[in-house]
Order: sequence, then structure tokens, then C-alpha cells
Amino acid sequence: MSIPQTQAAAQLQTDFLSASDAARLVMRTGITQVLRLMSEAIEADFMRWQDFDKSARTAAHSASGVIELMPVADAQDYAFKYVNGHPHNPQLGLPTVMAFGALADVATGMPRFVSELTLTTALRTAATSAMAAKHLARKDSRSMALIGNGSQSEFQALAFMELLDVRELRLFDIDPAASQKLLRNLQPFLAQFGASVSIAASAADAVKDADIVTTATADKTRATIIHAPLLQPGMHLNAVGGDCPGKTELAAAVLHRASVFVEYEPQTRMEGELQQMPADFAVTELWRVLQKQAPGRTSAEEITLFDSVGFALEDYSALRTMHRLARQAGLLSQIELIPSLPDPKDLFALLMQSHRAQVIQLSGRQTA
Amino acid sequence: MSIPQTQAAAQLQTDFLSASDAARLVMRTGITQVLRLMSEAIEADFMRWQDFDKSARTAAHSASGVIELMPVADAQDYAFKYVNGHPHNPQLGLPTVMAFGALADVATGMPRFVSELTLTTALRTAATSAMAAKHLARKDSRSMALIGNGSQSEFQALAFMELLDVRELRLFDIDPAASQKLLRNLQPFLAQFGASVSIAASAADAVKDADIVTTATADKTRATIIHAPLLQPGMHLNAVGGDCPGKTELAAAVLHRASVFVEYEPQTRMEGELQQMPADFAVTELWRVLQKQAPGRTSAEEITLFDSVGFALEDYSALRTMHRLARQAGLLSQIELIPSLPDPKDLFALLMQSHRAQVIQLSGRQTA
Repeated sequence: MSIPQTQAAAQLQTDFLSASDAARLVMRTGITQVLRLMSEAIEADFMRWQDFDKSARTAAHSASGVIELMPVADAQDYAFKYVNGHPHNPQLGLPTVMAFGALADVATGMPRFVSELTLTTALRTAATSAMAAKHLARKDSRSMALIGNGSQSEFQALAFMELLDVRELRLFDIDPAASQKLLRNLQPFLAQFGASVSIAASAADAVKDADIVTTATADKTRATIIHAPLLQPGMHLNAVGGDCPGKTELAAAVLHRASVFVEYEPQTRMEGELQQMPADFAVTELWRVLQKQAPGRTSAEEITLFDSVGFALEDYSALRTMHRLARQAGLLSQIELIPSLPDPKDLFALLMQSHRAQVIQLSGRQTA
Repeated sequence: MSIPQTQAAAQLQTDFLSASDAARLVMRTGITQVLRLMSEAIEADFMRWQDFDKSARTAAHSASGVIELMPVADAQDYAFKYVNGHPHNPQLGLPTVMAFGALADVATGMPRFVSELTLTTALRTAATSAMAAKHLARKDSRSMALIGNGSQSEFQALAFMELLDVRELRLFDIDPAASQKLLRNLQPFLAQFGASVSIAASAADAVKDADIVTTATADKTRATIIHAPLLQPGMHLNAVGGDCPGKTELAAAVLHRASVFVEYEPQTRMEGELQQMPADFAVTELWRVLQKQAPGRTSAEEITLFDSVGFALEDYSALRTMHRLARQAGLLSQIELIPSLPDPKDLFALLMQSHRAQVIQLSGRQTA
């Protein structure tokens, strides 16, 4: 069946959100509002966990880092993310983590939206952390230690101030300049939250008496940031940095002391803090807590741990949120990723339609 | 380490090749020349098969079709393709197969090139078929039956005329309009090859006395196009259409009569004609023939069969070929897929750098 070419051409544009336009969108909408909307979208999608075709991401490891593809789909939308992790990139002037991805229609396979996901990944990781903490941390949590003050840290701080009423932040990084940068970036937001931020002299100092401990360090090594003696009853640990094989942040004894919650168990067993534990170490998938199939925190003394590695479903939610917001804000552009064909069974016509004579004249060495 | 912003901005653009520009590139270069260059690139990359980190593609199946991600990497370049297969898409004005993909630097994870791959996939599939046939078909093969005259068929016909000196084409499709379209599209190329094309009354008529038989039908069903009685000694079969679970074109008896060659065995066992055969049915991976580790055709009477499903390595070769040609032809544009950061450890600065005041003013409901 042929359809008019103008109609085909109109159908087959793919929406595009560039990195600059994503930043513009977040500024216009308000970063805390974007974190809130994204957290709500992720929670709503975890609530319908069973609707999704899930798989652990595919990873290509090299000496310098890892490149991953993370697909997920429900009956309507297919999403995937391309993301790398290269700890030494900053020395080359590049971010450690870069990402982009797409949304497509399951019914036709048509890619509907291609987007930057570097900024979006930072937003969705923080939104997921805050969503998990809402269900796992003590309701009266007000102080948070933030260990690892790199690219992810501002987003974590803002998400916890916005969504959990955290009012006291204690920063630590082995690089003092990173903590200074975080302090500087958070400054404009403190008044509106009535919050305070300080830099601690050590990870132990930052963690002491903290209600919530967020770890977001970047080295691809088994660095132990949190040891069991630092734990206090009622703490919630939000472990964000241990997210690929060979990269952990917590001592095994910390996991033994805590109730451990994960996004998608098969992936976290390979990539999370969990990789140091026996294969039968008990964990709870977060969606089960949301759906009331499993308990979350059961007492004010319990230590809870969200062993976060980042799951494709969060990118699905984030892509859909950014697509909707960008459309409303008029910040989408279009790219011609898919050819518009007058007759969809005649791909070859794409070559012939505009310059038939020229094709023949130029068709390779036979005519030379 | 900070680098000047202008330098970062220059580094972090990603090359982009749109569907229209890909068509323009193929027209300017000459389609048969592109097929030749791509076939040479694929052959060269199969010759260094051991350099690649290979995996079977991930597939998300739905009632209407399939969406796949196909990654592959060597020590320098990472490539992936997004591709769908939705047999009923033409009724909606959309191609059955649509694709796009990217090349990235393994050393940093930076995506260097994003490209349309719908047209490119048709080119690389035909280039791979011809490359395999060069090693497997009789050298004196001059006639080819072409069963299934859809989007892939022109590319197959041209690749075999250009690279194997095929001079007689016999077309068949259950839809006569498809054969008429193919005949019409091939017309401008026949003189330069001194070739003839005819439409056969049946698949059996097309296949009778053909040196090479190419099957490229699109239905996602177990349709048997070629039965064993149609086989003749010395034939080479190029089975392109059976490329996902539940989709085959050849009777099992055909495979029993032939020496079967495949791209990447683990994937072909799931997706190819091979899916109907026992798990221990003997096949040879094509790279072993190219590297002289296994025999290809051993006699003029042998029946050879290339059970092609399409492998990520071919897209790697095709992406690199198109990127090089498009750069030479000045047909690349740029998209800002990755943010350019003055300090790569300060992603948050992306939000703050241009409108600090505006960010504060607009930062969500707290100030509303």
C-alpha cells in the first residue's frame, strides 16, 4: 500500500533532544521539579514491573572502561540506552559517563525519540535513589553523608533535599576540589530548602550520626569506602557507585549487617555491591516493596541498603519524561534517521527517485 | 583537569549521516562501487575474526515483530545497530526493516558517528551475500534465481552482477507487483553488465538450472520456498530471509543435502534455517573458510548453502565504510549528543553555566 510522500515524510522524522537542549529544558522546568517528575515516573513504572520485558544489560569491557547497551520494553514502548564508564576520561577532557538512547514503538519498530542521556542519567539515578529511600529510610531522616563528590553528587543532594526533606549534608571526597565544587554548586539552592552543607575531614566524620549515607565514587576498583564499624542503627545506605564488575564501595560486613534491596537481581548480582557476596545472599527487589509483596524497613533500628547499579527501566521512565517535557517546552528538534519511502516495499526508490540519470551516470567503475 | 570550553565543544560533536544523505552518498559514489567497497571491508574484517568481542544480538519479540540490538567491538571501535523486523509495516506506510546505529571509541566510550542504517543494512546484507558466494559458489556461476522481490532484492541483484559476474536473473515473488518493481529498478543497470532479467511463473521455474539461488522473503512464518527436489548439483544457495526464530525459507531436506556455512554459529542456531535442525547438525563458520582453516566448496557438484542471518560485524564494517565515504564526500552533519563540559567532572555546570540566575528563579515549585 502506497501513501502520499508528504505524509510519509511527516511520519518518519525522529524527535531529537540535544545535550544543550536537555540542559535548557531542565533549567526552564526547574531541576528539582524534573527530579520530582522523574522519581514519580520511575515509581509508577516499578509499580507495574510485571509489564516489562527485562534483561541484564550487555557489556563490552576493555582495559580503559566499559560500554553497555540497556534495553527494556513494555507492550507499547521500547527503550534502550548506550552508556560508557571510563574512569580516566576526565584526564582527556571527557566525562567519565556519557550516554544517549532512544524510544521506539513496539508495534512498528519506528524510533520515535533519540536523546542525549548523559545529563538525563544523572537525573534518573538521583531520582531512583530518592524514590528507594522514600520507601526504605526512616521518615525522620534529615542528615545525609555524601561520599564521592563527582558528577553525580549535586543531583543526589538535590533529589534528597527535594523528595526526602534532607536538611543537612556532609560532604567527603578524597579530592578536596571535588567537595569544593559540590559546595559551590549547591549554594544557590540552600536557602529555599533551609538546608546546610559542610565538608567533613574524612568519610568516617561525614558518616557519623548521618541518617542516610550516599556513596557515589567513580574508581573502577574494589575500594572500600564504608566499613561495618561506621554503621549506626536506623541508617539507610544509598550505594550508587558500585555498578560494574570489579567496582565496589562497601565492606562485605556492611551487607551482612543490612537488609539489602536491589533493582533487578540478576544484574545486581554481577555488578553491584552484591558481587562480593555468596550467590544465595538474600536480597529483595525494590518493586516487591512498592507492590507490598515484601516488607521494606521493619523498625527504626534496622539498617537498610539500596545497592543501586542502574536499570534500563529507569531510563525508559526518564526518556518518556524528558520527551514529554521537551515537547511541551518546544525544545525538540527532528532528525531524519529513517528514510521516507513513497512505497515502503521499494527501498531502492530512495536512490532512484531524485536523480535517476545521475545514478546511472555515476554507478561505479563500469562506466568509468 | 579542565580544558578550554571551545576545545571541549569541538571534540564532543558526533558525526551524523541522515537517511537522505546516505542515499545521496550512495548515488554520488555509485551503488555498485559502494557494494564493492563494503564487501571488501566485510571480507577484511572477517579475516581478523579473532580481534572481535562477539555476542548474539538481543531481541525483544512482540506480536507484531522484533526489535534487536547488535553490538560488536574490536580494540579500537565499538559498533551497534538498532534494527526492527515488522512484516506488516508496509500496510502502515512503514518499511518492514528500519535501522540506525553508532560507532564509538573503545578507549573513551565517546560516540563518534550516528547513522541511518536502513539503506546501509540492505547494502551490507547484499555485500555479505556476494562475499560469501565469491568463496562458495562455482566460479562459472552466471545465472541467479531471486525469490522474494522486496526491499532487499535490488541490492542482492546488483551485488551479484558486480561482484560475481552474474548475467542472468530470474525473479519470482508471490506478489507480481514486487517482481515488476524489481524489474523496473534493475532496468537502468542491465546494459552496463550485459545482463538479462526475466520474471518466472513460479519459484520452481526460477530455480530450474540456476547456478545461484537467493531467497529473500519477508514473512515471519515457517514458509518453505525451496524443497529438496529443486536442488541441482553445483548450486549455491544464498538464504537471506530466514533470519529470526520462527522464520525459515528452506525445507530441512535442503539443509541435509548441502554443505552449510554460517556467520556466527550461536546466533544462526537460534535464527537461521538452522533452527529447524538438530543442535549437532554440522556447519562451518564462514571466517574459517576465508582464513583457510576449513574447506569451502570442494567440488563442482557440491551444493553449498550460506544460511545468512546478518551479524553485527557486518554493520561494524558498513558503518566504518559509510563514515569514511561520507567524510570524503562532505555529507556528514553534526549532532550534539554529548555535553561539552569545561570541567568534565562537573556535569552540573552544564545547568548553571549560562543562566545561573534563571535557574534559581525557575528552580521548581519551592519558588512558585
